[in-house]
Amino acid sequence: MNDAGLRVRPDGEAALQDLVIANRVLAHYGVLDGFGHVSMRHPRLRDHFLLSRSLAPALVTPDDVMVFDQDSNATGGDPRTAYLERYIHGEIYRARPDVQAIVHSHSPSVIPFASSSTRLRPIYHMAGFLRGGAPVFDICKCFGSTDLLVRNREQGVELARILGDHAVALMRGHGFVAVGADLRVAVYRAMYTESNAALQQKAIALGGDVVYLTEEEADKADEMMQGVITRPWDLWKEQVLSAR
Amino acid sequence: MNDAGLRVRPDGEAALQDLVIANRVLAHYGVLDGFGHVSMRHPRLRDHFLLSRSLAPALVTPDDVMVFDQDSNATGGDPRTAYLERYIHGEIYRARPDVQAIVHSHSPSVIPFASSSTRLRPIYHMAGFLRGGAPVFDICKCFGSTDLLVRNREQGVELARILGDHAVALMRGHGFVAVGADLRVAVYRAMYTESNAALQQKAIALGGDVVYLTEEEADKADEMMQGVITRPWDLWKEQVLSAR
Amino acid sequence: MNDAGLRVRPDGEAALQDLVIANRVLAHYGVLDGFGHVSMRHPRLRDHFLLSRSLAPALVTPDDVMVFDQDSNATGGDPRTAYLERYIHGEIYRARPDVQAIVHSHSPSVIPFASSSTRLRPIYHMAGFLRGGAPVFDICKCFGSTDLLVRNREQGVELARILGDHAVALMRGHGFVAVGADLRVAVYRAMYTESNAALQQKAIALGGDVVYLTEEEADKADEMMQGVITRPWDLWKEQVLSAR
Amino acid sequence: MNDAGLRVRPDGEAALQDLVIANRVLAHYGVLDGFGHVSMRHPRLRDHFLLSRSLAPALVTPDDVMVFDQDSNATGGDPRTAYLERYIHGEIYRARPDVQAIVHSHSPSVIPFASSSTRLRPIYHMAGFLRGGAPVFDICKCFGSTDLLVRNREQGVELARILGDHAVALMRGHGFVAVGADLRVAVYRAMYTESNAALQQKAIALGGDVVYLTEEEADKADEMMQGVITRPWDLWKEQVLSAR
Repeated sequence: MNDAGLRVRPDGEAALQDLVIANRVLAHYGVLDGFGHVSMRHPRLRDHFLLSRSLAPALVTPDDVMVFDQDSNATGGDPRTAYLERYIHGEIYRARPDVQAIVHSHSPSVIPFASSSTRLRPIYHMAGFLRGGAPVFDICKCFGSTDLLVRNREQGVELARILGDHAVALMRGHGFVAVGADLRVAVYRAMYTESNAALQQKAIALGGDVVYLTEEEADKADEMMQGVITRPWDLWKEQVLSAR
Repeated sequence: MNDAGLRVRPDGEAALQDLVIANRVLAHYGVLDGFGHVSMRHPRLRDHFLLSRSLAPALVTPDDVMVFDQDSNATGGDPRTAYLERYIHGEIYRARPDVQAIVHSHSPSVIPFASSSTRLRPIYHMAGFLRGGAPVFDICKCFGSTDLLVRNREQGVELARILGDHAVALMRGHGFVAVGADLRVAVYRAMYTESNAALQQKAIALGGDVVYLTEEEADKADEMMQGVITRPWDLWKEQVLSAR
Repeated sequence: MNDAGLRVRPDGEAALQDLVIANRVLAHYGVLDGFGHVSMRHPRLRDHFLLSRSLAPALVTPDDVMVFDQDSNATGGDPRTAYLERYIHGEIYRARPDVQAIVHSHSPSVIPFASSSTRLRPIYHMAGFLRGGAPVFDICKCFGSTDLLVRNREQGVELARILGDHAVALMRGHGFVAVGADLRVAVYRAMYTESNAALQQKAIALGGDVVYLTEEEADKADEMMQGVITRPWDLWKEQVLSAR
Repeated sequence: MNDAGLRVRPDGEAALQDLVIANRVLAHYGVLDGFGHVSMRHPRLRDHFLLSRSLAPALVTPDDVMVFDQDSNATGGDPRTAYLERYIHGEIYRARPDVQAIVHSHSPSVIPFASSSTRLRPIYHMAGFLRGGAPVFDICKCFGSTDLLVRNREQGVELARILGDHAVALMRGHGFVAVGADLRVAVYRAMYTESNAALQQKAIALGGDVVYLTEEEADKADEMMQGVITRPWDLWKEQVLSAR
């Protein structure tokens, strides 16, 4: 345990535990593998956020969580290696006061949409949060040839701009971000962004016409789903706790 | 344990155990995830049905089962939260006296057909119950823009009307229902609706002509399969019991 | 234990054990699920064969194995329920003296080819046994509308005729059979029929030209693979034994 | 334990352990099944290499590792059966002094590209090492009809020639090789060659235009990824060690 980890305690103990569970759940279901990350706003310092040190999500424990300030700098002189892409989190938290948690993932059904001219759209009520279709952030449009990572504040600002008020933005040649007004909602959205992408892919391959949710249906479905978010969260939590 | 759970006992003890196993089997195979549900008619009160309180199917125990009347209202003043979509069950039981059990699922290979103009049809003998192709219930046709859930009796009545005398009806942008004259048959049909959808998808993607079962073949295969239903059921039961 | 089970002992003890392992391996990898079966010739009585009683393959133990005569009748007055489709085995053993073991499967990547005009062909060296493409047995051509099962000797004879000297024959709307001059080879072929089907499906979906193995390549690859059959068999055996 | 195994010890003990872990990781993730292999250069004798005896990768232990000379002959009179295709390794090590480890795999998403006119190209930053697209070695172009294995030095030389300075070469009707300047990098590349192939397949099936990484993006992404190689390696190592 170290100072940075302690900083969030004791009143943030429950938040820390939930963040660890979020890491485990997303790894358990393959939404995160050796890469990707999930963060949440600091429970007291609203312009700070909590994010693991650079580590595979499946291995994250409470002691691995670091505290970052609004410029995505580690606080308290925490010397541990941070994820290169922490700016994704910092800049979205800055641009979106409603967002309390963020998942950045490379999950396998979503990448194809991130690199295709075919838009990811909500095909069922579980993914109403994709209403209107997910926008795509193509880093080369503003920043030329890069390694595709979001490595600084400027790139994070542009990603947040593309995200706008959407719940999900795809990142060309890279992955996606999903955000929520609650950690459980952000996790849910990352999980079902992957699911929706897999389903839409299959629907397209059937060759017939595909009907997507209208914006009104999507809005209503998204609102409904946030009302029952406890149900899948409790299941996932039980699954990762019993798998330890 | 509570009054509502007890109501079905003691002569319904075996039914309760089977319903729990049905929940676990469908969750184990991914036909149900955090959502979806399976019900059965009450073993004595034929216009009542048994359905878990609002809970992820993998977590359901006998004590979670509630008793609903023909209008899908909880009986005995049971104060626990019920699934929003219990009307699916109530109205199908009312319209279809032959039906003893119902599964409502969002399984991943079926949704694409529910949102496509390509019809789900029986591609092999395991899915003869899909004879003639599964009808599609599109809630917006009668009810306009909704969150896609079946939230009241009227919507349940319309779903039951579309189902007609079929074994399976798809629900656009949502999922499907599978029914049977026996709990094990309904579970079997939900499992193999998913399988058939996956196989049909692949067959279509091969690009050649696809041959489906004729209605006569489908009828014969369905009848045959119901005669050997014990075999897969015993396997699935063994798998979920040994996984506990 | 019963007389029929004992009949094959004691000199057939190793054969019985291998047959049980074959059942478990094929179930473990999803080539068999609640249905399908694997048989072998009786080690002493060459016109008899060994096949489990009607049971999900994952649950088969040595005591479940029955002995059938050349007409697919149970021997020794064994009263247990036999698989309806045991005639698949009896008639192939009669027509193909070189065959020592047979797998009948409904595995998920193969069915689409059984119902499509696109032929299953060897796409890699692991499936040289598919040389020339797998023939398709369409039961309705000779027997009209049925439940698609091979339920009698006449249907078994026709299936064996379509199989000819191939290693694999597909069954329209149903599944396939894979045969071998050794139990391990038949299991291997069933496993890699499934794999080849999955790979060919993906190759076709890429949209480009697909190159298959020539017949000469297929013959050489098949011969080579039979020479190293111990390697995958030992792995699979280890996996199912450690999973018990 | 035997002389050949001892030969690499004691200063190569860590290398041996890593090679065993590499075998287990690749088997755990299905990049290797009963077939395929991974080798590394001998830590002291730079023109020799370490490779298991002929065995399923999941079962490899330190004692199974043999030492081969630059002509792919077993050293020290080691009498154990070697992989038929050890020449893949020997000739690539000879042609590519920068290469320290090699994986040869038949993984399921890659084979379709090896047999298709559609080229495998980097679709995301995890697979920058595929820059420019993977070349395809078609053994029949130089060697006519074979069983598709690389069975001698001449065939290995030709494969190494096609590989050139790429990180990955596909082998028509067979599989692929992935190389790296470090064992962990070669394992990573084999894992993500499989992933990239699966993603590219899905992207193509969406029917829209697909954007791949430019060569400059691919180079930068590959360099970046090698800098964080410890993260996935530590995860994979933990997973296979805890699964024992």
